[in-house]
Amino acid sequence: DGKNLPKPSTAGKYLREVLHMVINKRLVTGMIPPDHVLRFRHPQQLEEELDLSIGESGISKAEVVKTMKHVIDYSVKTCSPFMRNQLYGGADEIGLAASWLTDALNTNQHTYEVAPLFILYERAVVKKVLTLLGWDAGDGITAPGGAMANMYALPLARYKFFPDVKEKGMAHLKSLTIFTSQDSHYFVWKAAHWLGLGTENIVEVKTDKGGRMIPSVLEEEIREAKRKGKRPFLVNATSGTTVLGAMDPLEPISEICQSHDLWLHVDGAWGGSLLMSEKRRHLLKGVEAADSFTWNPYKMLGVPIQCSFFLTRHQGLLLECNAASATYLFQKDKFYDVSYDTGDKSIQCGRKVDAFKFWLMWKAHGDRGFQNLVENIFHCARYIRERMSDREGFRLVNPEGNVEEHCPNICFWYIPSSLRGLEETPDWFSRLHKVAPELKRRMLTKGSLMVSYQPLPHKGLVNFFRLTLTSTPRLTHEHMDFILDEFDALGSDIQIS
Amino acid sequence: DGKNLPKPSTAGKYLREVLHMVINKRLVTGMIPPDHVLRFRHPQQLEEELDLSIGESGISKAEVVKTMKHVIDYSVKTCSPFMRNQLYGGADEIGLAASWLTDALNTNQHTYEVAPLFILYERAVVKKVLTLLGWDAGDGITAPGGAMANMYALPLARYKFFPDVKEKGMAHLKSLTIFTSQDSHYFVWKAAHWLGLGTENIVEVKTDKGGRMIPSVLEEEIREAKRKGKRPFLVNATSGTTVLGAMDPLEPISEICQSHDLWLHVDGAWGGSLLMSEKRRHLLKGVEAADSFTWNPYKMLGVPIQCSFFLTRHQGLLLECNAASATYLFQKDKFYDVSYDTGDKSIQCGRKVDAFKFWLMWKAHGDRGFQNLVENIFHCARYIRERMSDREGFRLVNPEGNVEEHCPNICFWYIPSSLRGLEETPDWFSRLHKVAPELKRRMLTKGSLMVSYQPLPHKGLVNFFRLTLTSTPRLTHEHMDFILDEFDALGSDIQIS
Ligand SMILES: Cc1ncc(COP(=O)(O)O)c(C=O)c1O
Ligand SMILES: Cc1ncc(COP(=O)(O)O)c(C=O)c1O
Repeated sequence: DGKNLPKPSTAGKYLREVLHMVINKRLVTGMIPPDHVLRFRHPQQLEEELDLSIGESGISKAEVVKTMKHVIDYSVKTCSPFMRNQLYGGADEIGLAASWLTDALNTNQHTYEVAPLFILYERAVVKKVLTLLGWDAGDGITAPGGAMANMYALPLARYKFFPDVKEKGMAHLKSLTIFTSQDSHYFVWKAAHWLGLGTENIVEVKTDKGGRMIPSVLEEEIREAKRKGKRPFLVNATSGTTVLGAMDPLEPISEICQSHDLWLHVDGAWGGSLLMSEKRRHLLKGVEAADSFTWNPYKMLGVPIQCSFFLTRHQGLLLECNAASATYLFQKDKFYDVSYDTGDKSIQCGRKVDAFKFWLMWKAHGDRGFQNLVENIFHCARYIRERMSDREGFRLVNPEGNVEEHCPNICFWYIPSSLRGLEETPDWFSRLHKVAPELKRRMLTKGSLMVSYQPLPHKGLVNFFRLTLTSTPRLTHEHMDFILDEFDALGSDIQIS
Repeated sequence: DGKNLPKPSTAGKYLREVLHMVINKRLVTGMIPPDHVLRFRHPQQLEEELDLSIGESGISKAEVVKTMKHVIDYSVKTCSPFMRNQLYGGADEIGLAASWLTDALNTNQHTYEVAPLFILYERAVVKKVLTLLGWDAGDGITAPGGAMANMYALPLARYKFFPDVKEKGMAHLKSLTIFTSQDSHYFVWKAAHWLGLGTENIVEVKTDKGGRMIPSVLEEEIREAKRKGKRPFLVNATSGTTVLGAMDPLEPISEICQSHDLWLHVDGAWGGSLLMSEKRRHLLKGVEAADSFTWNPYKMLGVPIQCSFFLTRHQGLLLECNAASATYLFQKDKFYDVSYDTGDKSIQCGRKVDAFKFWLMWKAHGDRGFQNLVENIFHCARYIRERMSDREGFRLVNPEGNVEEHCPNICFWYIPSSLRGLEETPDWFSRLHKVAPELKRRMLTKGSLMVSYQPLPHKGLVNFFRLTLTSTPRLTHEHMDFILDEFDALGSDIQIS
């Protein structure tokens, strides 16, 4: 009956093993990184190698430890400087320590009663971010990822304009229309579906060559929608688009929103971290007039996953909009100040403690520490773009783009020897389109590097690479040089028939 | 410039500190638990004691460590057997070790490319759960909490009946109606608002004394709604209600759903864990005919927060419904089998790795280990209910309820000496209503125990306590006796004027 349960005498043994492995396998950023970014196996191969079945009886401690080792061996090493595939990298060590601590304390962030300190740390971070945004009042909450954080904006804006939507639903609200750029994140499409707005009520606003929303086109689209009898209500601007890293011009956009009485949401999931740098903050100028904002400190700043914030300038609205006032959780006759029970602002019930690790990192590094991290990224971005401009085989997607004016996404084609110096006909481009998947295959098979690729059909661009820079581990010029050399080593002899 | 960044030589030091603290402070279940469940401070007191500000410069390692110690000291100890306030307890050590590992690996669960093993472990758990549910096909995904998992059911059901809702929204779908019991979780209200259905399109179905949905009333409400021109589309049944722990009778409910062509969602956030016990599984009989199911293994089973699943019997529907097919993430020209890229089934983009820790615990404990954990809970539930029936001062809310037929929620009033033996007039009840908040105040102030309370207005019940039993730490009769004695020590002399 007591079998398979931990004995007091040995309690802690699995935790010790994990610490040991994490250090031994050099998963902590700041250590010499692991040799491989990954050891690729096809899903079917791994399914054969792993014993995924679960039996009647349990397994021994040794087998549990073996499984954890296996997990490390075949997982992607986000702590490697050469894992440049996503908008996030490794976990900062202080952030990771804070995660381990909150995991061990195993509580939810809904009431002060069960999470007294975590509620206060969340409030403190929110307050600090509101200041960075230039808002003198407001409110905020963590959400499980940037897509969810962004989603908060839509019901909030809708509720502000049409408060009876809460009771009556969307049935009598025809054609509420959302404006978002062609280059914005796909969350808008998912959210429009879920929230009952419908994806056909999304207007995609054209972007300039660099991927920035064109304000005059936005204004024209709003007028056009009104002419068609639609009801514009929200503009989703992006500070740091997913692929090109573009920063939408928030100042003219916010003026347009004001003149048409629209809610301005700014998706700063990626580029929000530029707020940490005095030198780059101006790229978000106009955000002080926005209605809501999303930021993922887990991306550029290396806060461990998950860590995303939704913020709004309208104090009190989040609670009013989302409250269900469940009597079993948010009792009003509690003996402490229940305004600290933040759970009813959320669409979640239980909510993981995501803010404390960010608070602790920020406290430990200070404003200046984070600023240095961001500046180092741009230092490397500038360097690798310059190298690419003079190096054969690399072609920047946007060579005239000013690296100081967008996020550290380096977008480029790799042109193997066999395609160099040829006439750039449609056929040539369709062959170039096939280079990235083949190069990626080689990359994963060797496991030395990971960089993502994608086409951009609305700009007529065939598959190109998107290399993104983040703060953990700290990147150097040597890392950048290695990446360039590795592209040559992997790809220069690619032949596309 | 390099200041405040970890040096390779000392990397790992914060992680060592956390391990040390977690063990020293006995936060691992299986150890002798901490002396206090909490040291209560009012929010304003804590705000004064803590330095919540963030400065230009960072702080020293010693200060970081001091902060983490502080966090432990003033946090609620969910690992204590006397933290009986929520539907979750402490974290199982193997689960915690797995969390620490996934935190260190810091990746998202959206593509096979960045989470090869974690994708396979999630698939393996989902498959195992589908089998437990008696579904021969289906699909599933983790979600950040049970409320979010439940929310998935609504857009999915709506899409199944009205596939053009994705493009067209809710504007032409009038009065889509949801049926849910009076005792169901508040997520329905939040979701109905967000999803554009409107809370006035929720029909609250009456429950019996034990809190179970009454099937004949459900059927009558469906007919009534149709008579009124509404369009019923979904029934939300609950396996384990939040307060009373009631298990809705799924078999008759599923028959009603079939005969009216309604989607049946089962919210098993709490009671889903009864599937782990051969003896109790019959309480979910009928689930094999449900369309979707939610389960929070983080509640009764001690899987670390967060860990919730949404499952559906309709294979392929989740992807079809939720896909946005972003070309930057879900490229179709990848060289591995992209059907393993599960991200597009989700409303999230990045998604934390929540399934692996559950898989590892299940593998380690085996089916039998989990069954034992569940049976031990019921053993203690039976014991404490029996003690309460013969002990002065305790009155069960539902004394004739059969503990074998619902979840381990023990609901009772504590009657202080001053209220015993008096005539039970309306005034007596309004005094009894005030006992729980006062007793709770004393409880938190002393910090020896935490049990939640709430009224149940729709059943005419004044504030009563809800004591819930979970698997981590392992509970014993001695713990139950301590809880009873502690209620007397804290509450028997309460006077309500
Ligand atoms: C029956 C029921 N459903 C759903 C939920 C929500 O789960 P979560 O808190 O994980 O969002 C709860 C939470 O207590 C619950 O009791
Ligand atoms: C601009 C932008 N917004 C939102 C998101 C979604 O964030 P998450 O993956 O945390 O949900 C992303 C993710 O890459 C993004 O690039």
